[in-house]
Amino acid sequence: MGLYSLNVLVSNTMRYQRLYFQQFIPAVALQASQRQMLLQSNARETVLTSHQRSASFARDLAAGKLNMKWICPYPTLKTEDDLKELNQLSDTVAKFFSEKVDSTKMDREANFDPAVIEGLKDMGLFGTQIPEEYGGLGLSNVQYARVLEEVSTDGAITVMLAAHQAIGLKGILIAGNKEQKEKYLPRLATGEWIAAFCLTEPSSGSDAASIQTRATLSEDGKTWLLNGEKIWITNGGFADIMTVFAKTQVEEANGELKDKVTAFIVERTFGGVTSGNPEDKLGIRASNTCSVNFENTPVPAENVLGEVGGGFKIAMKILNSGRFSMGSSVAGQLKRMLATVTEHATTRTQFGRKLSEFGIIQDKIFDMTLKIYAAESMAYMTAGQMDILDENGDPPDCSIEAAMVKIYSSEAAWSCGSECLQILGGLGYMKDMPYERMLRDARILLIFEGTNEILRLYVALSMMQYAGAKLQQRLKLAKQGDGRERWTAIMDLFREYMRVESSTKFLPNRSFGLTAPHATKTWLHDSMVNSGKMIEANVDSFRKRIYLNLRKYGKKIQDEQLVLKTFADIAINIYAMSAVLGRCNKAKILSLRNCDHEKLIATAFIKKTYKENLVLLESLLDPYPFDCKEESKRVCDAIIEERRYLCSHPLEVVHRYQEHPKYLEHLERIKLLRE
Amino acid sequence: MGLYSLNVLVSNTMRYQRLYFQQFIPAVALQASQRQMLLQSNARETVLTSHQRSASFARDLAAGKLNMKWICPYPTLKTEDDLKELNQLSDTVAKFFSEKVDSTKMDREANFDPAVIEGLKDMGLFGTQIPEEYGGLGLSNVQYARVLEEVSTDGAITVMLAAHQAIGLKGILIAGNKEQKEKYLPRLATGEWIAAFCLTEPSSGSDAASIQTRATLSEDGKTWLLNGEKIWITNGGFADIMTVFAKTQVEEANGELKDKVTAFIVERTFGGVTSGNPEDKLGIRASNTCSVNFENTPVPAENVLGEVGGGFKIAMKILNSGRFSMGSSVAGQLKRMLATVTEHATTRTQFGRKLSEFGIIQDKIFDMTLKIYAAESMAYMTAGQMDILDENGDPPDCSIEAAMVKIYSSEAAWSCGSECLQILGGLGYMKDMPYERMLRDARILLIFEGTNEILRLYVALSMMQYAGAKLQQRLKLAKQGDGRERWTAIMDLFREYMRVESSTKFLPNRSFGLTAPHATKTWLHDSMVNSGKMIEANVDSFRKRIYLNLRKYGKKIQDEQLVLKTFADIAINIYAMSAVLGRCNKAKILSLRNCDHEKLIATAFIKKTYKENLVLLESLLDPYPFDCKEESKRVCDAIIEERRYLCSHPLEVVHRYQEHPKYLEHLERIKLLRE
Repeated sequence: MGLYSLNVLVSNTMRYQRLYFQQFIPAVALQASQRQMLLQSNARETVLTSHQRSASFARDLAAGKLNMKWICPYPTLKTEDDLKELNQLSDTVAKFFSEKVDSTKMDREANFDPAVIEGLKDMGLFGTQIPEEYGGLGLSNVQYARVLEEVSTDGAITVMLAAHQAIGLKGILIAGNKEQKEKYLPRLATGEWIAAFCLTEPSSGSDAASIQTRATLSEDGKTWLLNGEKIWITNGGFADIMTVFAKTQVEEANGELKDKVTAFIVERTFGGVTSGNPEDKLGIRASNTCSVNFENTPVPAENVLGEVGGGFKIAMKILNSGRFSMGSSVAGQLKRMLATVTEHATTRTQFGRKLSEFGIIQDKIFDMTLKIYAAESMAYMTAGQMDILDENGDPPDCSIEAAMVKIYSSEAAWSCGSECLQILGGLGYMKDMPYERMLRDARILLIFEGTNEILRLYVALSMMQYAGAKLQQRLKLAKQGDGRERWTAIMDLFREYMRVESSTKFLPNRSFGLTAPHATKTWLHDSMVNSGKMIEANVDSFRKRIYLNLRKYGKKIQDEQLVLKTFADIAINIYAMSAVLGRCNKAKILSLRNCDHEKLIATAFIKKTYKENLVLLESLLDPYPFDCKEESKRVCDAIIEERRYLCSHPLEVVHRYQEHPKYLEHLERIKLLRE
Repeated sequence: MGLYSLNVLVSNTMRYQRLYFQQFIPAVALQASQRQMLLQSNARETVLTSHQRSASFARDLAAGKLNMKWICPYPTLKTEDDLKELNQLSDTVAKFFSEKVDSTKMDREANFDPAVIEGLKDMGLFGTQIPEEYGGLGLSNVQYARVLEEVSTDGAITVMLAAHQAIGLKGILIAGNKEQKEKYLPRLATGEWIAAFCLTEPSSGSDAASIQTRATLSEDGKTWLLNGEKIWITNGGFADIMTVFAKTQVEEANGELKDKVTAFIVERTFGGVTSGNPEDKLGIRASNTCSVNFENTPVPAENVLGEVGGGFKIAMKILNSGRFSMGSSVAGQLKRMLATVTEHATTRTQFGRKLSEFGIIQDKIFDMTLKIYAAESMAYMTAGQMDILDENGDPPDCSIEAAMVKIYSSEAAWSCGSECLQILGGLGYMKDMPYERMLRDARILLIFEGTNEILRLYVALSMMQYAGAKLQQRLKLAKQGDGRERWTAIMDLFREYMRVESSTKFLPNRSFGLTAPHATKTWLHDSMVNSGKMIEANVDSFRKRIYLNLRKYGKKIQDEQLVLKTFADIAINIYAMSAVLGRCNKAKILSLRNCDHEKLIATAFIKKTYKENLVLLESLLDPYPFDCKEESKRVCDAIIEERRYLCSHPLEVVHRYQEHPKYLEHLERIKLLRE
């Protein structure tokens, strides 16, 4: 091919590319309401302003890359001593929960046993992640995750402690100044003061930016007056310190006044704070949930957390940073349940055989094992990454991955909880056994810390945005870069185009560095290579679908919630497979105890999830023959209009329809057609 | 083709057939334990002894046929007056439940309001299916199903009434003699006496034949002495009349004494009957569940139900006959929930939009609508068939279909219940709203009246047996039949063989009579033909998979529970699609109110279910590349052996593994390999 034809090719490619990609570049410019739904000022900024910052697994995935640094090496503790210390702590916690905590009783009475609360304080569990200089245990994310495995024995305690430290006091850790930290953290760390997080309001659940609570600054600028009602506040009945979010008037650069959210540290003793009656709930019944009302509560100006008007960002940072922990707490609980349920299955006999010999029961045990392994792998991979600070001492932004862990583990808790109850049969339905309580407790996980619906949209929209921004960058380079940059960008775009457009596979699947035969990159144990190839195949199809769907919908993809949901599901699956692979690979290479057992679990998990992804990926093709979008839209429109089920009852018409004139007419018509 | 070659072909075909089918013919000879699991002496007899008897939808399906009589015409009531009367009754019931029944209160207090019980009696709801001559309402199955839609407003009442009449007194209806009917039915019909069904024991749940309760006949042959403990007996605390199953010694034809189950009508006043404390349960809390103990309870000989030793068959007949009703009661409840949840979604605003405008919420509403439509369609199709008596006045055996309806609707109740709660978000988790109670109530549906696990095996094993028996019959005809019979049988077998073996589709898909272009058979509305073709394609693949798997496993298929489960899932899907098609076809042909809305629902349901079946059918291929049988077996064996989760903890080894000697060794090895 001569120089001329090459030039034509490039210029044609450029032209195609422009036509092809132009439509979806505006995808990065979301509507204001969508932006709020993203719940992630944080992540968005990273995408749009600093491409230098190391991208996360999910953002890399969106750009069609597999971040090998996340997969290998699978994170671990630094020293043997760290491990020993951590094991001691978690053993102490485990012992306390098995000996001192009567969850059945606390659930029945919908209250905590005061002795239990004292015990938690003694173990330092009110300050696990507060630095040691402020009297806390100063645990890293990985260590915290490990301790939570034991705490999760009791759902209500888990929620109470999370409300206290994962969200209640987290704002002070993240955005508090030195004075605020010194004033509040020591007594919060001991549990002398208990914290709560006050964001949700009657008209503002998932949509956190729409709160109505308001704070107005006194004329002397020294005190804010807080007014408004917060609902479903965990620990709301007794919390001493509350992180409260309220609308405040902020002067913009152009002098305009605008309502913006500000975060405040509010002490109950400030006055004007009243709590409602505790809510009666399906589960986590011992935990306290109630409304908190602020009526002219005076808050000193120095109790503003971060900047005035910067509260929304703080709220999202707090929520984003805490979600990862659901993975290990669910895995811990499910591991205990697996043990008791297997005990039951191996002792109960029906039809002359132990339950555990029934294939249909074994399948439940197997499925639960795979889910535990995946939740555990994802949780520690994410926690481990969060523990790696950059040169400025900042943790990376793992908000998308944390959301994935939260979605996956909450759904595992719910489905496995139900299956455990099912293995027990009628016995499981009775309050004599703990399974029904565990199932009730698990149900909240799908709702709080961001509903799984909103989080799925968050995961998918963040990834779409990043994919769009990356393409925009490449196009820009192809137009304006220097010689080499330009050439690379053009060839990249061309390859992208060819891959996406070609239905036949005349270009080989990419290896993404996971199974490539380069010694430096091949970190995979031989027995893991096949699994690696499955992940790569999924990643390859995933990126093709991103491009196809961005091209199809352009910026309107933000309104295609079912498409976004499917993307999120696939991405979560890929993240889970990668975590499982990374962990099992480590186990195999180091010949860890039971590593062959792990290999079976990892292989099966990846096989099943790969297959699941194939079905999901197929549904993103256009046209997809089983698409029901049109039917769904029309059916829902009608139901939403009338607000009820609209089909006529099956018994509504009594004629035997062979005798019905319309039917006879129909028959006649068919006869005529055939003549 | 000359006569000679035709003969060779036939004899070769015969030889292939023999080799091919011989292995799985013994499938009909199940082990004793498997036979019990079938829970269906009833259905099994039909298969093995009387092929003349009209087969049911499921048995036809097993033999590779689509029973058009079930699909068209979709059943309905006889006259306008019937409909009017039924609507009056169900309106009365609906009004009663909405005005007089405080389910929240009864749930909280775990007790029925006596005024409610009186109201139920006044409406005759204790005797809905008892013939009018005995003081009942004498409702047909279809009518009963309709009334249950309203009763299901309260889960606990539904269960109490079902325990009374669907199982408690059903034995007297089915197997009682004239004296027994006259003595008991009138007072049971008014609710003066309340009935219970006493089968389950501590060591005998799903395995009903293994009960330990024993009855011994007095020397004068006039009285049985009953001893044993029954558990989880609904209404057990106050029931006046109990159908009790106990082991009795029966003399076999050969003079041997054998333990066989006998059913007794036991009055509480006979003495020696004590009830345990009410169980504290997850849901249906107002209903009474407790143990019932019999200590030397004297039962007059005339209170034996049916024959001595015939009790197991009666128990199974009772259970099999009642299950269909779960379909309409679930559909009724879900219809009401759809209305309230849509009301919420159209009033709650988040992110500046009504919840009902979110695609992800609409999808939940749509999915729920499809499930309601399917459950309703299956329930009334089954009830309608059960109302068609044969020339002897006997109802057909619809036990497989009833089990399918039970499985489908219980799972719809559970998943939709959870989604409704999810749409409400945090609000749904609170006891202020009814959703958490409905979810708790729904959970029992997956367990009682036969766990869905056992019922899936029952469905699949029954179908496999029938398929095996049919083939045996054909092979016999091919060997011993007269000329024409023999020829037909041989050609049938040959066609079967060709279809199953040929991977390419050189034989066209069969029409099964649903979409065939014969005027007399084309009962389908034009707009339904595509849906019909999808069902036919599923049926065609289904029969091929039956033959392939029977060939592969032979009689050992009974131990392949996951294969059986998959067969059951596909069969349930086909049954649901057929019911939906039949119902919607009627609606379209008669231009019923909202029939176009129904058409959208039916089309989408069939498309989605067809696709789901494709995935399930693929997993029955051999080899199936994503099969995890081996992994599952080995992982479960290890877990069951140790009774706990076995993987080493992700943090267990602290070495950073790039520095680990084993890893370095691994690297070295790879280097060597490449050189």
